[in-house]
Amino acid sequence: MNPYFEITDKKQIYDLLDSVEYGTLAVSVDDVPYAVPLNFVRIEENIYFHGALQNKKMKILAHNPKASFCVVENYALIDSYFSTSEGLACPATQFFKSVSIDGVVEQLDNKEQKEQVLEALMKKLQPKGGYKALSDDAYTKVLKGTAVYRLIPSTLSCKFKFGQHLNEERFERIISHLEQRDKEIDRETIVMMRAQRGKANGV
Amino acid sequence: MNPYFEITDKKQIYDLLDSVEYGTLAVSVDDVPYAVPLNFVRIEENIYFHGALQNKKMKILAHNPKASFCVVENYALIDSYFSTSEGLACPATQFFKSVSIDGVVEQLDNKEQKEQVLEALMKKLQPKGGYKALSDDAYTKVLKGTAVYRLIPSTLSCKFKFGQHLNEERFERIISHLEQRDKEIDRETIVMMRAQRGKANGV
Repeated sequence: MNPYFEITDKKQIYDLLDSVEYGTLAVSVDDVPYAVPLNFVRIEENIYFHGALQNKKMKILAHNPKASFCVVENYALIDSYFSTSEGLACPATQFFKSVSIDGVVEQLDNKEQKEQVLEALMKKLQPKGGYKALSDDAYTKVLKGTAVYRLIPSTLSCKFKFGQHLNEERFERIISHLEQRDKEIDRETIVMMRAQRGKANGV
Repeated sequence: MNPYFEITDKKQIYDLLDSVEYGTLAVSVDDVPYAVPLNFVRIEENIYFHGALQNKKMKILAHNPKASFCVVENYALIDSYFSTSEGLACPATQFFKSVSIDGVVEQLDNKEQKEQVLEALMKKLQPKGGYKALSDDAYTKVLKGTAVYRLIPSTLSCKFKFGQHLNEERFERIISHLEQRDKEIDRETIVMMRAQRGKANGV
């Protein structure tokens, strides 16, 4: 991995995990992998998700608790001619933020823990509220039928790719192309490019 | 899987695969799964992606060519009170389109095939052009250092979740909440809800 892109600051990593709506979990049994997208919530350093009992990912996890999880926030597609005038396709890329986690998944069996996780998931995805607290008796039956899982990371890596490795000329050339194209994602990308560039330069 | 959500129409499946910028590949070796996001291109029923030789996914695929791949296009978050006035958290959900593919990955060794795939990938992500054709001699060296892969699906499933299973009252209640919130994604979600509802009803 290009060392320019590595993010180790916990606040930036957690901000990303707390803002993206879904991630993709990879599990496997007998070396047959399975990729499944899911909504999730981070609590401290762990990742939590839920699902109906007896679905495919639950069955696989019962055999093999090892898992890999990734989230992506995509930014602008960078056309090949944005950074150079050489006319080759190779510089075409996409800027992004991503987190990659490997670890082990365990199922929660404690009712209060399950309530807390589902409450946190609701707070993440429906911050305005407007529902009975998950500790309400009305949820007793549905909680029994819902499996809640905790992914405990053994390794976590985070990557922000915003042209930090480019020389000044290429970097500014990309910015001027993004300014010209001027979609919302282009403007957001410019903000991230300047912010990450500042950090890479120790500003 | 809820049969209301299943999409079998190839055009709708291919349109989704051709419009999303990335998918997530799950691979595994010795039952240690690995999830990796990647840009890709569909050609006929196969999925193609590329990468530098000797990166982690290439090494795993050399040991075990089985893979699972998913793409997601997220639509509106549906707050719990959008569909009912019961005040419970349970109806909270997110509408989405997704494709899930299981299959086997093989590496392309033919130069012309690699050129065609990379040309197709460029056309997908940079449709305006502005670069030398991939058959140009300028790419000879870089093509040698680039691994290109084909995922051949053994199974493919596609799911569009837009409230097709809800009764008329709940369905219209969601639409009126989306109309009130009126973000761009809410307007796009309403269009998809009406279109899929029409199909589910045989309209």
